[in-house]
Amino acid sequence: MLLEKIKEPKNVKELSISQLEQLAAEIRQFLIEKLSITGGHLAPNLGVVELTLMLHYLYDSPTDKFIFDVGHQSYVHKMLTGRMDRFDTLRKYKGLCGFVKRSESEHDVWEAGHSSTSLSAAMGMALARDLKGETNKVIAVIGDGALTGGMALEALNHIGHEKKNLIVVLNDNEMSIAPNVGAIHNYLGKIRSDKHYQKAKDELQYLLNKIPAIGGKIAKTAERLKDSLKYMVVSGVLFEELGLTYLGPVDGHDLNKLQEVFQQANNVTGPVLVHVLTTKGKGYSPAESDSHKWHGITPYKIESGQVLKAVGPPMYTEVFGDALIELAEKDERIIAVTPAMPGGSGLMKFAARFPGRMIDVGIAEQHAATMSAALAIEGMKPVFAVYSTFLQRAYDQVVHDICRQNLNVVFAIDRAGFVGPDGETHHGVYDIPFLRHVPNMVLMMPKDENELRNMMKTALDYNDGPIAIRYPRVAGLGVEIDAEMKPIPIGTWEVLREGDSATILTLGPMIQVAEEAADMLKRDGLNVRIVNARFIKPLDKAMLLQLAADKQKMIVLEEGSQQGGLGSAVLEFYSEHGIHDLAIRIMGIPDEFIEHGSIKEQRQEIGLTSEQIAAEMIKLMPRRRRSATGQR
Amino acid sequence: MLLEKIKEPKNVKELSISQLEQLAAEIRQFLIEKLSITGGHLAPNLGVVELTLMLHYLYDSPTDKFIFDVGHQSYVHKMLTGRMDRFDTLRKYKGLCGFVKRSESEHDVWEAGHSSTSLSAAMGMALARDLKGETNKVIAVIGDGALTGGMALEALNHIGHEKKNLIVVLNDNEMSIAPNVGAIHNYLGKIRSDKHYQKAKDELQYLLNKIPAIGGKIAKTAERLKDSLKYMVVSGVLFEELGLTYLGPVDGHDLNKLQEVFQQANNVTGPVLVHVLTTKGKGYSPAESDSHKWHGITPYKIESGQVLKAVGPPMYTEVFGDALIELAEKDERIIAVTPAMPGGSGLMKFAARFPGRMIDVGIAEQHAATMSAALAIEGMKPVFAVYSTFLQRAYDQVVHDICRQNLNVVFAIDRAGFVGPDGETHHGVYDIPFLRHVPNMVLMMPKDENELRNMMKTALDYNDGPIAIRYPRVAGLGVEIDAEMKPIPIGTWEVLREGDSATILTLGPMIQVAEEAADMLKRDGLNVRIVNARFIKPLDKAMLLQLAADKQKMIVLEEGSQQGGLGSAVLEFYSEHGIHDLAIRIMGIPDEFIEHGSIKEQRQEIGLTSEQIAAEMIKLMPRRRRSATGQR
Repeated sequence: MLLEKIKEPKNVKELSISQLEQLAAEIRQFLIEKLSITGGHLAPNLGVVELTLMLHYLYDSPTDKFIFDVGHQSYVHKMLTGRMDRFDTLRKYKGLCGFVKRSESEHDVWEAGHSSTSLSAAMGMALARDLKGETNKVIAVIGDGALTGGMALEALNHIGHEKKNLIVVLNDNEMSIAPNVGAIHNYLGKIRSDKHYQKAKDELQYLLNKIPAIGGKIAKTAERLKDSLKYMVVSGVLFEELGLTYLGPVDGHDLNKLQEVFQQANNVTGPVLVHVLTTKGKGYSPAESDSHKWHGITPYKIESGQVLKAVGPPMYTEVFGDALIELAEKDERIIAVTPAMPGGSGLMKFAARFPGRMIDVGIAEQHAATMSAALAIEGMKPVFAVYSTFLQRAYDQVVHDICRQNLNVVFAIDRAGFVGPDGETHHGVYDIPFLRHVPNMVLMMPKDENELRNMMKTALDYNDGPIAIRYPRVAGLGVEIDAEMKPIPIGTWEVLREGDSATILTLGPMIQVAEEAADMLKRDGLNVRIVNARFIKPLDKAMLLQLAADKQKMIVLEEGSQQGGLGSAVLEFYSEHGIHDLAIRIMGIPDEFIEHGSIKEQRQEIGLTSEQIAAEMIKLMPRRRRSATGQR
Repeated sequence: MLLEKIKEPKNVKELSISQLEQLAAEIRQFLIEKLSITGGHLAPNLGVVELTLMLHYLYDSPTDKFIFDVGHQSYVHKMLTGRMDRFDTLRKYKGLCGFVKRSESEHDVWEAGHSSTSLSAAMGMALARDLKGETNKVIAVIGDGALTGGMALEALNHIGHEKKNLIVVLNDNEMSIAPNVGAIHNYLGKIRSDKHYQKAKDELQYLLNKIPAIGGKIAKTAERLKDSLKYMVVSGVLFEELGLTYLGPVDGHDLNKLQEVFQQANNVTGPVLVHVLTTKGKGYSPAESDSHKWHGITPYKIESGQVLKAVGPPMYTEVFGDALIELAEKDERIIAVTPAMPGGSGLMKFAARFPGRMIDVGIAEQHAATMSAALAIEGMKPVFAVYSTFLQRAYDQVVHDICRQNLNVVFAIDRAGFVGPDGETHHGVYDIPFLRHVPNMVLMMPKDENELRNMMKTALDYNDGPIAIRYPRVAGLGVEIDAEMKPIPIGTWEVLREGDSATILTLGPMIQVAEEAADMLKRDGLNVRIVNARFIKPLDKAMLLQLAADKQKMIVLEEGSQQGGLGSAVLEFYSEHGIHDLAIRIMGIPDEFIEHGSIKEQRQEIGLTSEQIAAEMIKLMPRRRRSATGQR
């Protein structure tokens, strides 16, 4: 086993290419075994084994900066930089992070989670290096999917202009998470399919020799011809035109070819794009044959590739997708829009049923949002399905294009609240604070899958502007589904449980937690009212006034930032109405980033369990009530 | 005068090309005269006179959709669509909007203000058209500067892939607002400078004829050669590679050539890019010779081109720029970063003094933010100077890249609060709500220019993470400037005026308004305390507790959204500390978009004048105090 000897990058440098090949095989075996138990981003990492080995073989991390776009393909890098023994804790609470993490190692120099940031990071690091008069290399590894994100293209435009020395490794596996779309993808496909590439280069000489010597007045034209012939032999004209030197494409699983192309890259002055062709899931046939499914995977059986699935009610994501089909059957104006997440957003069945009405724009949240605005202007009913955390990318488009023009765009905001093992980069805990202040927006969250369906009907019936439904990355409750979806009156809440001691005002999956807390408190003699605050905006003003009249102590409970969230909305409402004597406690996510782990652990860390809520409620009670419950 | 006869687009269609030329001259005269009194975006509109005429000449608005990127170049379009008589009210309260405005005319089909949205809009409209089985044209007009915005590139990637019929008019004037940067700009420059373009095309035939007939095994290579020769005669390879048909470049002031190229474009199936070369400020020599200055202009004298400037203290923008130079003299780690706004952000002098330390990335807020994060990781002190409204574009980068990694990036947020005549797309009224909930962020606002300088020192001394200073689009107060900048302890407020009747907690330019209100109230016998809440985050907890102890009525006064703003932060603080008996009234911007006008009118509309504040304070007073002041 070579693997056991790899404690730090310098151990990689001591190997021969054929030993590296053996090491690559051992790394694959290691990842396939470890991830079969923990789950994780298997396919992307199997794809970059040789590439990562070659980077550590040729360059000196952390002096040379390796920047992994998204960062989910950094497992091999983690293995080579002293973290092999921590893979049993991968993506677990306090365990190894599933992305690059600066606090884990000096070799982790840039963190991500969202895509398309690596080129900006590389540009910043190259600028700083030159300003400091240093000479280290800066190397960004970016997938073909991430390259189409707007900020990566902004960075490419700047990189090509500034001409700093840096290396962009285009890790081209013909797909991002979903099969890739877009003109750049088509363009890369043209390069890949060009089997005659090398041959043509040789034959070109033959042809050029047949052109007689040219002088005089058409010399300039001949010069242009020579230039134009470059396009014949250089595949990456697009990148060359943008000011980068293009090298490739090379087989990203051939260590010799990788070595050769990076040595070439080192000799280039200015920015270089190294086009590396890799296969997602390489070396594990289930993952190779369905790299989409194996992009991020739950635990599985190695032999069969069978994924161990939890049984139970469907995820909210799936409920959304199915309901959208039902609605779209009756209304042909409904168009689904996704930024490269047809699978993650539950739209695969929709796409199969209505191929012309599912628009996958690639990793391009900004474009997706604004294009939806234009669809709405023209009378369509766009449903922009997007993860809460990725909607952050389209904040300005939501404000400036959709809400300001007050257009009928429906937002289906998935992964709202904690997301568990993906951790701090992926939580959907800011959408309430960043959407609530935008004029014209309506924002809802369902208590169960049946209410999600009713909210979808509500949203698609609504014709007064933008409307959003946020739902969590969990399974539904298994409630009975009504045959017909019914719209819910905008801005109405519902009392789920009456109680004369105090009120918990909450929403979404925190309702279950509140119910448990209320059950505990009941045993202590406190009857707690629970309100389903399903409209975050507009609030149920009548109910809020009624609650105020009761003068009960109140907890607003939310799995989202408590800075500017639902609780703040409630405080603002009472302030505006001159109601100043209510005791309201907000329990949400405090002002910090919460790392990876299970959703349960994440809630526990910040006090959002039923026990903690019950305890908090007792503290809020007047002293005499407290002592009645046996608390001090 | 032809101009008088143009009541609607069909009147344009009735003219000959030579009459259009005359009309173009009359339009220029009209704009130069009108804008000399109102101010406005003169240079961009003088640049698109012929282009706009030709669009209305050849196409049928509003059936055919004209989408103007940004929208400040729509004055000619407004003139041709029945709004000529409203130009005296341009950019004034309740007057003609300086951008495209759907409520003004059926010919205004898409609104903007921020750049780079037009291609997404065009794509959405083309998709909707095809789904509805209609056949209208969709035409986006986008500048070379706006084209480099990430969302425009995302859209281009999608447009090239979907192959819908639409026309992208690249209005190439070699600059956005500032001289343009970026690889795409360089690329366009190459095309522009190619004088031999047409000639080369002819000469190519001559050369091709000299190549002997080729058959057999190298036929494939010959085919490739033919393809590659296309690159010689087609200038816009970059766009061709992305799947658009490229036409141009054509002289955008030559009506015959414009007509020809659009007729060509109409015959193309799939997306077309029409490359039009225009001169900003065309026809008015002061604007032609300094189109940067004349991009957006205040009233001027037509003969001399002399701009009528208000005298008085310098704008906050200028104070920022000067102070940054002072700081940068002593600390070479300081780097200024701007997304195409070196002038607007007061960085021209800085750029002249430290050319290598001012990074203009083009219209690319996302890249600018994340590149700044990387600069900070490498020990630089990036100062990201950006308008509040444009920072909306980088919200995710602020959250995910800068604050989550807790990096020392300094944000200089200009145009915070109302901006006056640019109106609803440009107000900086959401940055408090969208930054306040992001962990690790420090957010300040100065009361005067001296405090701005001290805050800059504070920010650049600070080493614990991101820190932001927001300041308004107004002149300073003319206060004395301290010789030395002194850091302000983080999270400290100051009492500016003591008072035992009530408290106004406010910040920035609203402090003056509060002072005026307090003076009025004093005449009524009320002594109002005024607190400069210069740190929006973190709050001054000690002072808040002290204020609570006093149990005074309190108004939180802010020129920003009152959903999730400073007032909400105060309410949250007291709720968290179990202080439930304070009467707090938030006076800020209600949940709506506020249109163009003067800042004073905008404040008046929503009740943020000293009179309105004083009246509100009296309402808040107990009845006996109210009657003491003679109010009912």
